Amino acid sequence: MVARKERVGQIPLVSPFPGETKFQLKEPVASQGEVDPRPSPVRNVLLRRLSFSSRLKSTHSRLCIQACSTNDSSQHQCPSLAFSTENSSTRGWRVMGTLLGLGAVLAYHDHRCRAAQKSPHIYTREEVKSHSSPETRIWVTLGSEVFDVTDFVDLHPGGPSKLMLAAGGPLEPFWALYAVHSQSHVREILAQYKIGELSPEDKLPPTLKTSDPYANDPVRHPALKVNSQRPFNAEPPPELLTETYITPNPIFFTRNHLPVPNLDPDTYRLHIVGPPGRKPLSLSLDDLHQFPKHEITVTLQCAGNRRSEMSQLKEVRGLEWRTGAISTARWAGARLCDVLAKAGHQLRATEAHVCFEGLDSDPTGTAYGASIPLARAMDPEAEVLLAYEMNGQPLPRDHGFPVRVVVPGVVGARHVKWLGKVSVEPEESHSHWQRRDYKGFCPSVDWDSVDFDSSPSIQELPVQSAITEPKEGEMVEAGEVTVKGYAWSGGGRAVIRVDVSLDGGLTWQVAELDREEQRPRKAWAWRLWQLQAPVPPGKKELNIVCKAVDDSYNVQPDTVGPIWNLRGVLSNAWHRVHVRVAS
Amino acid sequence: MVARKERVGQIPLVSPFPGETKFQLKEPVASQGEVDPRPSPVRNVLLRRLSFSSRLKSTHSRLCIQACSTNDSSQHQCPSLAFSTENSSTRGWRVMGTLLGLGAVLAYHDHRCRAAQKSPHIYTREEVKSHSSPETRIWVTLGSEVFDVTDFVDLHPGGPSKLMLAAGGPLEPFWALYAVHSQSHVREILAQYKIGELSPEDKLPPTLKTSDPYANDPVRHPALKVNSQRPFNAEPPPELLTETYITPNPIFFTRNHLPVPNLDPDTYRLHIVGPPGRKPLSLSLDDLHQFPKHEITVTLQCAGNRRSEMSQLKEVRGLEWRTGAISTARWAGARLCDVLAKAGHQLRATEAHVCFEGLDSDPTGTAYGASIPLARAMDPEAEVLLAYEMNGQPLPRDHGFPVRVVVPGVVGARHVKWLGKVSVEPEESHSHWQRRDYKGFCPSVDWDSVDFDSSPSIQELPVQSAITEPKEGEMVEAGEVTVKGYAWSGGGRAVIRVDVSLDGGLTWQVAELDREEQRPRKAWAWRLWQLQAPVPPGKKELNIVCKAVDDSYNVQPDTVGPIWNLRGVLSNAWHRVHVRVAS
Repeated sequence: MVARKERVGQIPLVSPFPGETKFQLKEPVASQGEVDPRPSPVRNVLLRRLSFSSRLKSTHSRLCIQACSTNDSSQHQCPSLAFSTENSSTRGWRVMGTLLGLGAVLAYHDHRCRAAQKSPHIYTREEVKSHSSPETRIWVTLGSEVFDVTDFVDLHPGGPSKLMLAAGGPLEPFWALYAVHSQSHVREILAQYKIGELSPEDKLPPTLKTSDPYANDPVRHPALKVNSQRPFNAEPPPELLTETYITPNPIFFTRNHLPVPNLDPDTYRLHIVGPPGRKPLSLSLDDLHQFPKHEITVTLQCAGNRRSEMSQLKEVRGLEWRTGAISTARWAGARLCDVLAKAGHQLRATEAHVCFEGLDSDPTGTAYGASIPLARAMDPEAEVLLAYEMNGQPLPRDHGFPVRVVVPGVVGARHVKWLGKVSVEPEESHSHWQRRDYKGFCPSVDWDSVDFDSSPSIQELPVQSAITEPKEGEMVEAGEVTVKGYAWSGGGRAVIRVDVSLDGGLTWQVAELDREEQRPRKAWAWRLWQLQAPVPPGKKELNIVCKAVDDSYNVQPDTVGPIWNLRGVLSNAWHRVHVRVAS
Repeated sequence: MVARKERVGQIPLVSPFPGETKFQLKEPVASQGEVDPRPSPVRNVLLRRLSFSSRLKSTHSRLCIQACSTNDSSQHQCPSLAFSTENSSTRGWRVMGTLLGLGAVLAYHDHRCRAAQKSPHIYTREEVKSHSSPETRIWVTLGSEVFDVTDFVDLHPGGPSKLMLAAGGPLEPFWALYAVHSQSHVREILAQYKIGELSPEDKLPPTLKTSDPYANDPVRHPALKVNSQRPFNAEPPPELLTETYITPNPIFFTRNHLPVPNLDPDTYRLHIVGPPGRKPLSLSLDDLHQFPKHEITVTLQCAGNRRSEMSQLKEVRGLEWRTGAISTARWAGARLCDVLAKAGHQLRATEAHVCFEGLDSDPTGTAYGASIPLARAMDPEAEVLLAYEMNGQPLPRDHGFPVRVVVPGVVGARHVKWLGKVSVEPEESHSHWQRRDYKGFCPSVDWDSVDFDSSPSIQELPVQSAITEPKEGEMVEAGEVTVKGYAWSGGGRAVIRVDVSLDGGLTWQVAELDREEQRPRKAWAWRLWQLQAPVPPGKKELNIVCKAVDDSYNVQPDTVGPIWNLRGVLSNAWHRVHVRVAS
């Protein structure tokens, strides 16, 4: 087992392996004589299967994702995973590892016997898909094999919810994200649950109709929660979103406005319009690589993140993003200021704008476009990139291959993908998305009264935070609750504090922030946070709320009503999650 | 009469002159046959005194304060006032002017007769002071003369509340602010109300005891609402605060931490510590004037502005600032970056801080101190000043004579006054005010649990707004209400919108913002705003609320509880004013 200790991207994860010998217990195993008064599905299954009388209250390990280095791309198709061994209680996890290892062996034997008694059956993908809940039983596939993992779900040490993401479909996309699965004993455990094979025609990947303008869109990761297929808009589920500081490329939220263009990197050219009297630049990918390579970790957020909370209040126009229209990657590319300088541009006394045009376009040939102020583009400290790498990889097609703009601290809409043209203009981009969209308004403004010219285009975003664990409506254990989430602010303003309330905002506790480096004035990336707090005795439910503070001491508004706007953008009220407490 | 049209600082004011012939009516005078169903004190008095049957609904003029130019200091001891004639309805105001002029003449005659019948009486200042309400009658002084202006208060076209600020005391400090009073017919009107003379000993200004460390503090303007005499801390009343875009020096809010030093400009030296191996600079005022002169309009706000709203909720430590710990001036001086460069400083790869030390000190010799990051100090775009002029004047003593720091977009506490020393250090200033004060905390933190090191010192302030008219508890006319206030945000972020609610936040209307220039990324000064809105019929009271949005789309929090902190700083929840509606 790998046991690296790299700091980058290291956050706590629940281990996916019951048989793993290097568990690190967050709490010591209770003495054998102690009776746990609370029911626990995990414990009950263990007790039934393994006949252990010892108590398992909570079994955690710490797992870290190593952010991809740029010089090691083949090895980092997805961020690699490694257990860290940074903490103590070594003896505790040895005991638990042994217990769980024994459990796995017993379970393995039990199922081998069952498997031997049955002959493999043939299933279609459609049939597999229909088995995605405990009621219908939970099936998954790996290669051409079909497994019924219903009885394993509660045993999955990554948590039942993580395995449920794959219910009714293939395991590969998830195992690709979490490399810890690529060990032989994991496949052995899985083998016990085999119930059959996929039908021969279903072993081939599905083909797309070629008449469809979206026919060339890439294949997406099944974990993504799709808000729109055409154009493709999808977000990672909350339980994966804050699992890692760096969001793995395949589950990075995707906000496309048009079909994904299929660009040939060899013939790709980026046009940089020069100032009057200067020739434009036409840069190949190789040309762009000649500029000094600049690498930064940046969180991107869609203006519509958490829109669903606004639309619950009153109808808005826009996709129903939940808390996942935000993700973080390590981006590398040329600095826009270097490229603009090469083209002959310099700062002007009068306000000017750098306009970006994508190579994605609608049937009329209109391309996606946006702009940012020239002052930001020319400021080396603002670190605006023409990015060609995302987490050490060439940009995935959904994220702008081969080149996109990355504007740290600024709304996602300005990070133009599939970048074709850059020009400096006296006015903002005339694109629909710059002038007739992505602007905020007073709650009283409706589609009859809206005057888009009265409001500035969104550039920097306000302070934001959300809870990713527990989930709305979930049942939490009495005793102690763990609340997790993210927080971020625009303009390079660092998040300095996250307050969490368990009583709807009456009293507050300070959450623990991750220790990722926050550069002054250049805090471009989010902070993950968590709070472990006692559940007040006797409480049947908790109204969990979070709110963040940035280093300008800006805070989130209490409620969504007074910031409601017809496009449902800028939804950054306190995030609220209501859960029940197990009694 | 002066009728300049300079744009700078021009905002609407109610004219202080009933006899002024250049009134500009916002609404036309109603036809003579029309009956106004609503009572109005101003109208009733006019009707009674002048026996006019015509209707006066609302009489406004536009008045502008010309911000002081730096080359014309003697003329601009206080900003000069001038009527603008920018709008039409010329005929309407001529009619009204004539009517009011006639009224003044009649009133003048009436009172001359009364005055002639009485012989002058001698009063002490103490006696005058006891006449400051309608119940005790309202007396004021001008020079050695005493006037009973009770019957004139409602006639004062600047509004009764403005005249009431002088009740029981001298008129001079107010007339000095509003130069429009320095016309002969104003004195003639006043003469009618004369009731006597001040006793001879009371004609001399009061003397201070010299054993008092504050004995050398300057004399202050009586309009200031004093929160603490020693050290002196005071704010202008709301009705004066937003009367002018540029706050006149005498009523600019004052936040002193120690006695005001009495510095000789001829021997004054500013010490700039150089980098290792370089000699320090010792700059006289003349030396400082040799640097390029830079002039900017900047709003200063105390971290404790609006603290009284926090302390209403739960006790905090700090002065009871209301909405007036904020003011705006035009500052001029040398740019800190130029002075630091001259001393040999440059930006560093590692974070560093520019520490300021004042020449004010406590009995132990400890001076006031604070610091800002070097990156801000060295950035020409951040426009940090070593200011020696305030609204075209040498700095008043209360505001740092002869030199203070002005850090645009940053909390007032870093604008060190009576500046003595500047140094560049690897760490923030070790002063109490940098490290053990002026920081924000979670509402759950109390004086037993506070860890000042856990929170960053306040630099940029969050978005802020407040209502200055009407006042809490005031009675407003049915029909239409005018709401006025200010809005500002830290870090050069422009205020892009102010929403006003008349129903406690259920519905919102967009206020009209003044048109002062807002430079992108350098919106250092506030925006004044107003809303004229119909009072919903049948309403007996209004819960007026305002909230501002800045160009990063940050908003103010709904309520003060969740941002409450033990020092009562950063109080920027929606501002609420409750008024009754006249029936």
